[in-house]
Amino acid sequence: MEHLGSTRPTSSEAQARSKPWLARYQHVRATTEALCEPLEHEDYVIQSMPDVSPPKWHLAHVSWFFEAFLLKPYLSGYTPLDPAFDYLFNSYYETHGEPFPRPKRGLMSRPSVEDVQRFRAHVDEAMTRLLSAPPPEQLDELLTRLELGLHHEQQHQELLVMDIKHILAQNPLHPVYAPNAAPASRVPAPALEWVRFPEGVRQIGRMPGDGFTFDCETPRHRVYQHGFELANRPVTNAEYMAFMADGGYQRTELWLTEGFHGLDQQPQHAPLYWVCRDGRWHHMTLGGLTPVDPEAPVCHISFFEADAYARWAGCRLPTEAEWEIAAQDEPVNGQFMDAGHYQPRAQPINGTFSQLFGGVWEWTGSAFRPYPGFTPLPGTLGEYNGKFMANQMVLRGGCCATPEGHIRASYRNFFPTSARWPFTGVRLARDA
Amino acid sequence: MEHLGSTRPTSSEAQARSKPWLARYQHVRATTEALCEPLEHEDYVIQSMPDVSPPKWHLAHVSWFFEAFLLKPYLSGYTPLDPAFDYLFNSYYETHGEPFPRPKRGLMSRPSVEDVQRFRAHVDEAMTRLLSAPPPEQLDELLTRLELGLHHEQQHQELLVMDIKHILAQNPLHPVYAPNAAPASRVPAPALEWVRFPEGVRQIGRMPGDGFTFDCETPRHRVYQHGFELANRPVTNAEYMAFMADGGYQRTELWLTEGFHGLDQQPQHAPLYWVCRDGRWHHMTLGGLTPVDPEAPVCHISFFEADAYARWAGCRLPTEAEWEIAAQDEPVNGQFMDAGHYQPRAQPINGTFSQLFGGVWEWTGSAFRPYPGFTPLPGTLGEYNGKFMANQMVLRGGCCATPEGHIRASYRNFFPTSARWPFTGVRLARDA
Amino acid sequence: MEHLGSTRPTSSEAQARSKPWLARYQHVRATTEALCEPLEHEDYVIQSMPDVSPPKWHLAHVSWFFEAFLLKPYLSGYTPLDPAFDYLFNSYYETHGEPFPRPKRGLMSRPSVEDVQRFRAHVDEAMTRLLSAPPPEQLDELLTRLELGLHHEQQHQELLVMDIKHILAQNPLHPVYAPNAAPASRVPAPALEWVRFPEGVRQIGRMPGDGFTFDCETPRHRVYQHGFELANRPVTNAEYMAFMADGGYQRTELWLTEGFHGLDQQPQHAPLYWVCRDGRWHHMTLGGLTPVDPEAPVCHISFFEADAYARWAGCRLPTEAEWEIAAQDEPVNGQFMDAGHYQPRAQPINGTFSQLFGGVWEWTGSAFRPYPGFTPLPGTLGEYNGKFMANQMVLRGGCCATPEGHIRASYRNFFPTSARWPFTGVRLARDA
Amino acid sequence: MEHLGSTRPTSSEAQARSKPWLARYQHVRATTEALCEPLEHEDYVIQSMPDVSPPKWHLAHVSWFFEAFLLKPYLSGYTPLDPAFDYLFNSYYETHGEPFPRPKRGLMSRPSVEDVQRFRAHVDEAMTRLLSAPPPEQLDELLTRLELGLHHEQQHQELLVMDIKHILAQNPLHPVYAPNAAPASRVPAPALEWVRFPEGVRQIGRMPGDGFTFDCETPRHRVYQHGFELANRPVTNAEYMAFMADGGYQRTELWLTEGFHGLDQQPQHAPLYWVCRDGRWHHMTLGGLTPVDPEAPVCHISFFEADAYARWAGCRLPTEAEWEIAAQDEPVNGQFMDAGHYQPRAQPINGTFSQLFGGVWEWTGSAFRPYPGFTPLPGTLGEYNGKFMANQMVLRGGCCATPEGHIRASYRNFFPTSARWPFTGVRLARDA
Ligand SMILES: [Fe+3]
Ligand SMILES: [Fe+3]
Ligand SMILES: [Fe+3]
Ligand SMILES: [Fe+3]
Repeated sequence: MEHLGSTRPTSSEAQARSKPWLARYQHVRATTEALCEPLEHEDYVIQSMPDVSPPKWHLAHVSWFFEAFLLKPYLSGYTPLDPAFDYLFNSYYETHGEPFPRPKRGLMSRPSVEDVQRFRAHVDEAMTRLLSAPPPEQLDELLTRLELGLHHEQQHQELLVMDIKHILAQNPLHPVYAPNAAPASRVPAPALEWVRFPEGVRQIGRMPGDGFTFDCETPRHRVYQHGFELANRPVTNAEYMAFMADGGYQRTELWLTEGFHGLDQQPQHAPLYWVCRDGRWHHMTLGGLTPVDPEAPVCHISFFEADAYARWAGCRLPTEAEWEIAAQDEPVNGQFMDAGHYQPRAQPINGTFSQLFGGVWEWTGSAFRPYPGFTPLPGTLGEYNGKFMANQMVLRGGCCATPEGHIRASYRNFFPTSARWPFTGVRLARDA
Repeated sequence: MEHLGSTRPTSSEAQARSKPWLARYQHVRATTEALCEPLEHEDYVIQSMPDVSPPKWHLAHVSWFFEAFLLKPYLSGYTPLDPAFDYLFNSYYETHGEPFPRPKRGLMSRPSVEDVQRFRAHVDEAMTRLLSAPPPEQLDELLTRLELGLHHEQQHQELLVMDIKHILAQNPLHPVYAPNAAPASRVPAPALEWVRFPEGVRQIGRMPGDGFTFDCETPRHRVYQHGFELANRPVTNAEYMAFMADGGYQRTELWLTEGFHGLDQQPQHAPLYWVCRDGRWHHMTLGGLTPVDPEAPVCHISFFEADAYARWAGCRLPTEAEWEIAAQDEPVNGQFMDAGHYQPRAQPINGTFSQLFGGVWEWTGSAFRPYPGFTPLPGTLGEYNGKFMANQMVLRGGCCATPEGHIRASYRNFFPTSARWPFTGVRLARDA
Repeated sequence: MEHLGSTRPTSSEAQARSKPWLARYQHVRATTEALCEPLEHEDYVIQSMPDVSPPKWHLAHVSWFFEAFLLKPYLSGYTPLDPAFDYLFNSYYETHGEPFPRPKRGLMSRPSVEDVQRFRAHVDEAMTRLLSAPPPEQLDELLTRLELGLHHEQQHQELLVMDIKHILAQNPLHPVYAPNAAPASRVPAPALEWVRFPEGVRQIGRMPGDGFTFDCETPRHRVYQHGFELANRPVTNAEYMAFMADGGYQRTELWLTEGFHGLDQQPQHAPLYWVCRDGRWHHMTLGGLTPVDPEAPVCHISFFEADAYARWAGCRLPTEAEWEIAAQDEPVNGQFMDAGHYQPRAQPINGTFSQLFGGVWEWTGSAFRPYPGFTPLPGTLGEYNGKFMANQMVLRGGCCATPEGHIRASYRNFFPTSARWPFTGVRLARDA
Repeated sequence: MEHLGSTRPTSSEAQARSKPWLARYQHVRATTEALCEPLEHEDYVIQSMPDVSPPKWHLAHVSWFFEAFLLKPYLSGYTPLDPAFDYLFNSYYETHGEPFPRPKRGLMSRPSVEDVQRFRAHVDEAMTRLLSAPPPEQLDELLTRLELGLHHEQQHQELLVMDIKHILAQNPLHPVYAPNAAPASRVPAPALEWVRFPEGVRQIGRMPGDGFTFDCETPRHRVYQHGFELANRPVTNAEYMAFMADGGYQRTELWLTEGFHGLDQQPQHAPLYWVCRDGRWHHMTLGGLTPVDPEAPVCHISFFEADAYARWAGCRLPTEAEWEIAAQDEPVNGQFMDAGHYQPRAQPINGTFSQLFGGVWEWTGSAFRPYPGFTPLPGTLGEYNGKFMANQMVLRGGCCATPEGHIRASYRNFFPTSARWPFTGVRLARDA
């Protein structure tokens, strides 16, 4: 008796349990393919910087995940389409086998997009077989891994949007991914107000029994929280332009020193993708080159830019605990990938806050480190999050490229301090 | 009336208050010069890597600090020895003026060592005048800055030891700084035992009224601490060699990914300064090339090495809060700079722990970020610590190169994850 | 009266003269497209190193050349397909306009392959119109530029073969361009013999009136030549393997110092594309991974490797004058692109030498510098060769990827000393 | 009769022959030390870029040369002062033993300047013994190597001047090496005139029997020379400033492409060491920061700058054969090191030309490659010149830092195309 009260299910019970998962699998897979639908063949191949992966790599890698962690262990008689793919599409699981070097993903023209689509179909066919007649004795672990695989593919959906944007943005022709992908705000940004939270012992981390979680969100644990206030909405482009106009990028006292010196590496003193045309700020979006929308949340800024802005405004970044304390009773809705608008827009107040979820990932002042009592997943899947816990900052809340249903209050995203190609923004906090 | 109950002191009251400070000033200054006494002229000039400064730069920079923050504002009629020094010896205070580029400090042969000694004498003479007849109306601020300046010079004493070691270690001749600088342990390392600390709300940070503090140690504040155990002594060289022999440097599952890939940059899979001679590990010390002492704490390891070792041992690094909770009632003694032994040695138990203070700086699992309610010092001195609060980890406890009296339980040192030239070691922790 | 005795031709005379050029234009253009026929869509996009250009860039750039230098000046009413292409596909003609940065050619997914093919068709249609009714008064200059444009496209045919090979060779799947692209030698390499040439004043450089020439081959001029001997065939793979087996790559006295230190940058001590499998040398070819053919000329070696081999063999590289003196009366035949075998093979003696032309480009000991009296072409086309006359060595004779009819005794190719991705080999010389 | 039929000299004959060499040895050695006399101790240690060596390294290395090539082979019972010096002060003789890495010369504080002076004294004492009683049977080879060693030390005298200048020039304090080291011209530059040389077969290379030669100057050999004209004096600062004012640095058509793109690496569009103060060009000299002298030859320019200037002036660089043909009958006098003025000045016509010798090294258009029939010295000394014959251009004529008596018409100096820290200038040539 492995889990209290669990007995080994019969085959038909197992099928009944796995059936809804097959539908969910098909939905996630179809969503990934729909995201790539507007691409030209040539767009799939390019790696515009080491952090970016070619879209066809994403398409293959998420399939590899199902092959490596579900089909090979659980589908008897499964034959890989091409044994070399196990090397080519392993991202970073070193205990699984030496991964193909990440910065060279853009040097591989083969397998072609069609080959990758064949690989996807091959995996889909096998997954359908597996989920139609799952091995009852391994059903629990199988469904646990399946759920992880689906969340993994959703993470790569967001990465696809980020990476496609970066790839197209290198091109002086300003190619358009989808004509309506970046409409302007339909409402003004709400007036800035502060929401106050009192001092005391609180709990953060994924609530046990509340559904899927990544290992790094656990365990739920107590923290001592000092009183604080959190802004009711993210910082807007208009506000960020005021910071720029006030010499924000020149005033050394506003910056962490590594960030200030790193400005030399940025092509200009503005968020990523911004370009000045005829004296007015525009930015590259998936809908083409458009004027910057003053009401929308500022986006594509580094941790250092977020931090400098906050200091200029007389505030600071929230910690991840503050953010989660504020978010844990709020409704999880906002501007997500499913709307097909891959650029944040102003949103009205929803509950207490405007777009705590969706829109832009919000930089926190917390480094990505393990929670007290953290245990990574066993085996190779333990490499999923734990091994990145150095020199990364936590971001919270998801963005306009995050699939709906993928985000939650306890979700910990993380990026290095200089990353700007995710949809990163900032919400202010201050001591109460 | 700025401070409750304070009235402006008379001139003679001011002199009485400043008099003991003059003695302390002279003591600190003389200690710095004594540290350089064994150097050859040529040793003063070299910058062996961008993080290292030439010893003569240290000698001048600490004097610049007194000139910039005390003599110029408070000693009427003070004339700098050379106005160019204000540019050359400003380390990183950008609001004071653009500093001379750090990686170029080793390109300056002039001012010569004698010029720098003249600069020190010039500053000392002026400081003596200032402290003999301090302006009563500014006495409080003057003494506050003086105390900071003395702690600053003590920090540079430790940096001098680190940097001199790194400079001499580049040299295939293995020059010796002082023949007796690195004796072997006289006692064995104590048996490893665990000290248990219960769960609950605790306080950390410098206690107000307890004496000098850097801004980053404040404010004292509550934290929620989970139960934990802390090792009674640091990890030894013998233990670290067992990790190496067990393939610790090859086993990817033990490492944070950035650390594992960074091993390519290290000349070998061992702590800094280690070299293998006739099948046996030796290391470069300030006393020359000597066999590694198995009983002594392992030293000159990166955060990643400390973290990998801890994972191999089935443990983890302590957080800075855990370390401070354990340390705050312990006696502050151990192996410090003043003993003239610049290599950690095994120490007996002292109170509950062996060498919580002194010996080696202990890597914690905490990123260097502001405490709740942190406020940097006003003005230029606010650049002292606050602007480095990104991509640095906290280390605790001081080391064999730390001046006695300079360290305390709340002291937060910080270095990037890959730094190995400080005297860095590791003490294990685990969940209780 | 521009040229002595020339009168302006009538329209029908002009058409009669341009008609055969149209056929030649169509042949060259069709050859380029045939070369790309085996490619997958994805192969067209990749830039595997800064020196390599994506195949679709080559396809577009050679068309841009006709557009920029013929259609825009001479076809009245010509409308470009896309004005942005003038920026994107200018390789390096800085007086024409700022070129798109070379290392970023592989970041552009658009224009797509289909777009580029449309651009080619657009240019072809316009060129057909231009050549069917050329402006009589500009016919001479027009045909001069046309001929240059055709030779330019032929040069890019060779670059296409080189670049496709490099792109496919990055891929661990070892993709095959064409199954029969690299057959083994059908004959053994001829026995090594020396051909002797006496001392005296000679002439080199393109003979006036002998047909098309690049500017850098002129003027024909006298040189004083010392007696020398030239090998009757290139160095073979078998001979090069003997050099390797004799420790050739380790023996510093055989190497120019820059070459010896540069070996650290090479993945292994062997020609480019070689890999050791089961104790035997194989190499990546356009026909796939095959064993190295011992009879074939060694290929894909740097100037430094060629020079070290020659020193090991007690010989030296020929100067370009020596090579040309030997070649100027020899028949121009050998293994060229048109045979569809993109890997050099042993060839029998043909006249006095084996494969003086075709097979492999032969490194000479001469730096690429102007001939006495050299004048570059006027205007922008003067940038064609002259501005590269620094830090490049001359290579002679063409290779298996050179189009037949494109090579001649006076032809000067040039590459930096470390280039290995061209089909480079070596023929020995020695003093007589 | 020196060689043919030579019989072994008696001991006293040998002493008689070596005696004048001892005086010459002492003179050269004393000159080196005199050059360093103005240095501060700290100046001896610095390596301001990888191409520069610390002065104390030069002092030791030239002594190592005598130790390695004369004392160890010929002085029986010679004991090195420190065996480690054989490794530390070997510059690049890889067949002698692995040299200490060049870019790390500036990391060694020890041996100290005093240690190096002791090493010099140790070698001088032993050399005195050797030359007072030379082994008669090896006298020829001994004196040949001695002469080479003296020319070697003279070359390092010039390098010392160049490197000291570069080291001091990094320093914002503008330290002065010697107050009168860089006086302005006392005469105007002569009016530019052209000296014509007819076409025909000529000879260049060191004339046998004419005295000491480096291997690369031999053998003397015939060349076919086209008619040319050579300017009677080098280009002046005034002329170069006219080129700058005419947009010379911006006009791409004047530049070799590698040179034009390399301008991004230069801090400004001007010769090395130039700085603009109050709207007027100054330059760092060994006499301090002074206004640029318009009459003096332009100095510290790269091959690319020299080449671009020549193209702007409608001329070209001379080949090395042209330069030598012009120089071989001219008197070898001009502005040399011995005058103690380390900055070129205008000189009157002397014979046919102004300062063909001395003043500035003159870039030629010839790559440094072996002469026909070139044979390097046997053994390790064969590494002296031959292994650098790639990617270097020849310079001719010596400069203001070249010791008198060290230069001659056949002397071939060489530097990479981008070198600017030697005293490099340009003399124009054109076709006749
Ligand atoms: Fe993944
Ligand atoms: Fe400091
Ligand atoms: Fe081209
Ligand atoms: Fe030397």
